[in-house]
Amino acid sequence: MASKQITDRAVNHVWKYPDAKLISLGIGDTTEPIPHVIASSMIDYVQALSTPEGYRGYGAEQGNKELRKAIAQKFYKDTGITDTEVFVSDGAQCDISRLQLLLGSNVTTAVQDPSFPAYTDSSVIIGQAGDFDDRNQKYRNIEYMSCGPQTHFFPDLSITPRTDIIFFCSPNNPTGHAASRVQLQQLVEFAHKNGSIIVYDSAYAVYITDDSPRSIFEIPGAKEVAIEISSFSKFAGFTGVRLGWTVVPKELRLSNGFPIINDFNRIVCTCFNGASRISQAGGLASLSSDGFKAARSRIDYYMANAKILLDAFASLGLKVYGGTNAPYVWVHFPGLSSWDVFNMILEKTHIITVPGSGFGPGGEEYMRISAFGNRKTIVEATRRLESLLP
Amino acid sequence: MASKQITDRAVNHVWKYPDAKLISLGIGDTTEPIPHVIASSMIDYVQALSTPEGYRGYGAEQGNKELRKAIAQKFYKDTGITDTEVFVSDGAQCDISRLQLLLGSNVTTAVQDPSFPAYTDSSVIIGQAGDFDDRNQKYRNIEYMSCGPQTHFFPDLSITPRTDIIFFCSPNNPTGHAASRVQLQQLVEFAHKNGSIIVYDSAYAVYITDDSPRSIFEIPGAKEVAIEISSFSKFAGFTGVRLGWTVVPKELRLSNGFPIINDFNRIVCTCFNGASRISQAGGLASLSSDGFKAARSRIDYYMANAKILLDAFASLGLKVYGGTNAPYVWVHFPGLSSWDVFNMILEKTHIITVPGSGFGPGGEEYMRISAFGNRKTIVEATRRLESLLP
Repeated sequence: MASKQITDRAVNHVWKYPDAKLISLGIGDTTEPIPHVIASSMIDYVQALSTPEGYRGYGAEQGNKELRKAIAQKFYKDTGITDTEVFVSDGAQCDISRLQLLLGSNVTTAVQDPSFPAYTDSSVIIGQAGDFDDRNQKYRNIEYMSCGPQTHFFPDLSITPRTDIIFFCSPNNPTGHAASRVQLQQLVEFAHKNGSIIVYDSAYAVYITDDSPRSIFEIPGAKEVAIEISSFSKFAGFTGVRLGWTVVPKELRLSNGFPIINDFNRIVCTCFNGASRISQAGGLASLSSDGFKAARSRIDYYMANAKILLDAFASLGLKVYGGTNAPYVWVHFPGLSSWDVFNMILEKTHIITVPGSGFGPGGEEYMRISAFGNRKTIVEATRRLESLLP
Repeated sequence: MASKQITDRAVNHVWKYPDAKLISLGIGDTTEPIPHVIASSMIDYVQALSTPEGYRGYGAEQGNKELRKAIAQKFYKDTGITDTEVFVSDGAQCDISRLQLLLGSNVTTAVQDPSFPAYTDSSVIIGQAGDFDDRNQKYRNIEYMSCGPQTHFFPDLSITPRTDIIFFCSPNNPTGHAASRVQLQQLVEFAHKNGSIIVYDSAYAVYITDDSPRSIFEIPGAKEVAIEISSFSKFAGFTGVRLGWTVVPKELRLSNGFPIINDFNRIVCTCFNGASRISQAGGLASLSSDGFKAARSRIDYYMANAKILLDAFASLGLKVYGGTNAPYVWVHFPGLSSWDVFNMILEKTHIITVPGSGFGPGGEEYMRISAFGNRKTIVEATRRLESLLP
């Protein structure tokens, strides 16, 4: 629960320095307004809901057909993924838990180390994780695949044991690394060999600027071994609007031949009643030509922030990663505890960051710096960071 | 999956009678526009999201504080329930599944028979239910508490075995029966005696017209044994907007003294990222003085429909239940299979209903008639129903 600890320390800090203007480069939360073209489609939709002609009740649990089609068309164009394989959700984190319901407690699980805590946390809740081992800061039944700079932020698959499920996030939160095509080909091959299912989180795929794959389904053979979870949160500024999706290809089958899409459909119909129709109207607008352009301009804005932050930490003489394919900069503080660094940065600059150890033991010595923020705040943060110069 | 069968039969029917104007008294889905005062608050909220000053990202997983306070104030005023015990959700069905995640597979469960299928369906998914017994149409590990007219739609507790969990819906979907104060006192006492937890679904509480309790927490001692799930769906026409809530009192503890609210909070924070902020703005408006009045007028409208349908079925010489404290009329067709009655009504009147057996074996011989619909359609339906006269 790093986020709780961070909040507590921030509160104490404000108590100690009541005049300090705290800057948060902590939580990965969008800060810039929703583009007008997207907002106005939601306004029109609400307006219609208040008229006899425009009122709509329950929608399909799997989401509005038009939106499912637009997602398939926009993000999976040349992969052969169709709208019937796209399930609209109220966000990636919620769908991770629904997937865990599908998987149950009797599966073995691997996660990247470091990685977004939701995979591990939901594994704990469903009962896959086993006891927490204080000594090495790991759950005993979870396989932590080390993904540091020494292995190009990719697991050494030659020493990775087989698991039923492999959670894999690219671009990775927190390291900001987008897996290369070759890396993902190796991952898909590994899953085929072992009969594993990859749960691929592509929530930051729209931030990729180079030619790294935007979807696992760009890799031949992925449809037989992977589920992809994604989100409008960081794409359209929808963190508070709540909209995401999951792709379950019909080719993905259990060892007895049963299509997993049927099971997932059942979970969605039983445990979920569809995303808000208003949010779905906004999502659809964000995939229109104008909406997409407007959403992209926000992404460019955050990525310009990332460049500023990357340069600022690099100019301190620190080794920096990420920040070019994701809105996160991953900064190495060799030999230091990331909580000590958190405290030091907070004390010296009144800036909130996230200690890398909150993402797994492999994050120790690192800090995650979020590029979400208003430009003025980001620039002010870099000014303050200069005080860290030795 | 009665709903799938109903859809299939409706499609076949339209195929057979292409000119028939189908009327649905089937699915319990609101049909009347969202009141302007509620819609405009959502419009204002979306508008603000498109401005730098009004933009908001992630909200609290447990919901907006103001909304939690308004729910506590409006629905739990004299019960001592406070805002910190109210968790805002994206709907009752979703929270039922999150509760099942909390409960896990190793609990024993009882449901009313008949009852809303989500309790049983989610028990099956989490692994509590055991095999389905075709002979008596029951899951072997679920206790079906018979709730027919002979026991005033309440279980005979003297013959009900102890279970860990008791799902209880009042006003009941499908029977429309609102449990009386005395009945609920007995239920709470039964739960105390057995160390059971009542999961109380009050999604239709706003439809109660007599002095039946609107909340389980009106019953002394309920806070030690009950969780309440509720919804804005049928109150504010939010079936497509998605908003509900769950109350977990801090007095509710596991046998080891651990407060269940802490566990539920953890589930909400891990498996859910909060309801859409736009829906929450609408929910808050629906609890304002004007919003509540406007929402109530819709409820009165549906209840006037219910009266018309109740009278129509009664005038056919049939025994009718419900329809005065809930938007459902529960009609008895003694000796007949409810699927046969479904087919007969569809064939003779082009009206879709729901066979009672879809709500459990105790629903056999009954039909659920939904009062959601436009008045003109309801009146037309009653006209057609006259053709059922012998």
